Amino acid sequence: MKKVVTIGGGTGTFTVLTGLKKYPLDLTAIVTMADDGGSTGRLRDEFGVLPPGDLRQCLVALSEGNGVMRKLFNHRYEKGQLEGHSFGNIFISTLEQVTGSLDRALDVVGKILNIRGRVVPVTLTKIRLVTQLKNGKVLQGEHQLSDYQLVSKFGIKNMSLKPQAKPNPKALTAIGNADVIVVGPGNLFGSLIPNFLVPGIGKALARSKAKKVLVANLMNRHGHTDGFSVQDYVDILEKYIGKKGVFDYVLYNTKKPAKALLKKYADEGEPLEDVPRGKISYKLIGADLLSDAVAKKSKTDVVNRALIRHDSDKLAKVISDL
Amino acid sequence: MKKVVTIGGGTGTFTVLTGLKKYPLDLTAIVTMADDGGSTGRLRDEFGVLPPGDLRQCLVALSEGNGVMRKLFNHRYEKGQLEGHSFGNIFISTLEQVTGSLDRALDVVGKILNIRGRVVPVTLTKIRLVTQLKNGKVLQGEHQLSDYQLVSKFGIKNMSLKPQAKPNPKALTAIGNADVIVVGPGNLFGSLIPNFLVPGIGKALARSKAKKVLVANLMNRHGHTDGFSVQDYVDILEKYIGKKGVFDYVLYNTKKPAKALLKKYADEGEPLEDVPRGKISYKLIGADLLSDAVAKKSKTDVVNRALIRHDSDKLAKVISDL
Repeated sequence: MKKVVTIGGGTGTFTVLTGLKKYPLDLTAIVTMADDGGSTGRLRDEFGVLPPGDLRQCLVALSEGNGVMRKLFNHRYEKGQLEGHSFGNIFISTLEQVTGSLDRALDVVGKILNIRGRVVPVTLTKIRLVTQLKNGKVLQGEHQLSDYQLVSKFGIKNMSLKPQAKPNPKALTAIGNADVIVVGPGNLFGSLIPNFLVPGIGKALARSKAKKVLVANLMNRHGHTDGFSVQDYVDILEKYIGKKGVFDYVLYNTKKPAKALLKKYADEGEPLEDVPRGKISYKLIGADLLSDAVAKKSKTDVVNRALIRHDSDKLAKVISDL
Repeated sequence: MKKVVTIGGGTGTFTVLTGLKKYPLDLTAIVTMADDGGSTGRLRDEFGVLPPGDLRQCLVALSEGNGVMRKLFNHRYEKGQLEGHSFGNIFISTLEQVTGSLDRALDVVGKILNIRGRVVPVTLTKIRLVTQLKNGKVLQGEHQLSDYQLVSKFGIKNMSLKPQAKPNPKALTAIGNADVIVVGPGNLFGSLIPNFLVPGIGKALARSKAKKVLVANLMNRHGHTDGFSVQDYVDILEKYIGKKGVFDYVLYNTKKPAKALLKKYADEGEPLEDVPRGKISYKLIGADLLSDAVAKKSKTDVVNRALIRHDSDKLAKVISDL
């Protein structure tokens, strides 16, 4: 069975996995561990656990169980002391405390959710994302990145993790043995780059004989990636991966979202700039990857989630055809 | 397979089920739904759910899964916003919200915990326990019963449920089909009687051809059952069941707890008074039923739990020998 590894976190990886799950593939989701906002942030602060939120999304995506468990894991409380928490986050974090190990906890949750494949934290070190802005100001934690005005005003100079992370050996092995590695889509600075800030992950990716695929985002995000082209995403990711020309394929969406939706989304960002016309080191594949369903924002969603999303089936079809 | 039904709630029923689970019996635990204190009370107040705490204890007792899930379900948070909550309570209550039905939720939890037998709420009506004291004062909710000084000062005149409860048909069926019915041990006013305040439950018990067994408590509780004899327990339970001479067997413990333990427990209660010497309508069976293990109190245990407990194996042996 073809071994496919995804690298990312959040809704983007959820979408990729939801689509790929329908194919006879051996799936491994390597997941960022930098989240510290919302429900995940509260659990980290109160219990000193590793961040559960991105893991939960991947676990739910890979679940082949009945709908009830998936619904349960994604349940978000809308009142009381649990307001804003997701049940799945509480489940994973409590199991980590009870078993004393996130690795063991993920085994148990994986069985309960009856998942296809596996979900692998990129690191088991308890890290925080540190973002240096060009004016010298330092943002502590991934959640501070959502101060888009501030980030926009000064621009990001550099990112790192504190303390230095150890790569999860399972992540290195999965990357080394992969036939296909899919990076993205996802928040560039919040969900994708933090994976490559873990020492060894970029090197393993560069060395792997797998076909390396970048799924470009549909939309830029104000303050983070204003005016970015597909090539800009490639450049910055390869900078953090540590090697130029890593990607074999870059997939991008060719179908413009409906005007009404773009208007709704205008506060958050614009579609990516035109694709590069010059010489490129990868095969550029344009396709209609846009979801026709309109995503809804829950009132207790404390995290910004994209309203304009990839279609998991369209995306999986293009990836599996590579 | 012999059909055994337990009626109760809390630690007492947990102990009975833990022991009986080891025998080849068809087990049904009928559980009080009057709890509204501690973690259970907060979940009821915030989400309008049915009380999960007593159900959780029975589910854990009947679980044949690996230790991790049992440990997870009993995990009590010791800090943060979740302080005092038990994970299992949150699990059951969230699943009730997600599925829209406690019955469906219990099915799912039962599968995850891999339970032997079934756990049946005595009613699915959202009720509160109403206790009228002899001075006319009315205590709203089961948690107010733990104001032992107040209860002790005036004494309990009458108990009822508000609003009137409908019996769970599954409970009536289980009682009707049972070969053996075990009532208690457990907090008399807080855990045992509330089952018989649900219309139809007492009548079903009285009518059932099952052998009816009362397991007398080890200890009286100050304010509730000071100076009670075994016969007093029988009398008051039969009053609420609605028929005299219901019980075929009454089991009581003959081994005195260690003096040091009695001293520790002195604030909470004393051993039951001597057993009746007059004419009785049941077979009285005295045996060493005492646990040698010393129960510990967790610092986040908001509920009063007995430090002097029945031994689940000794108890199950006597019951299965009937």
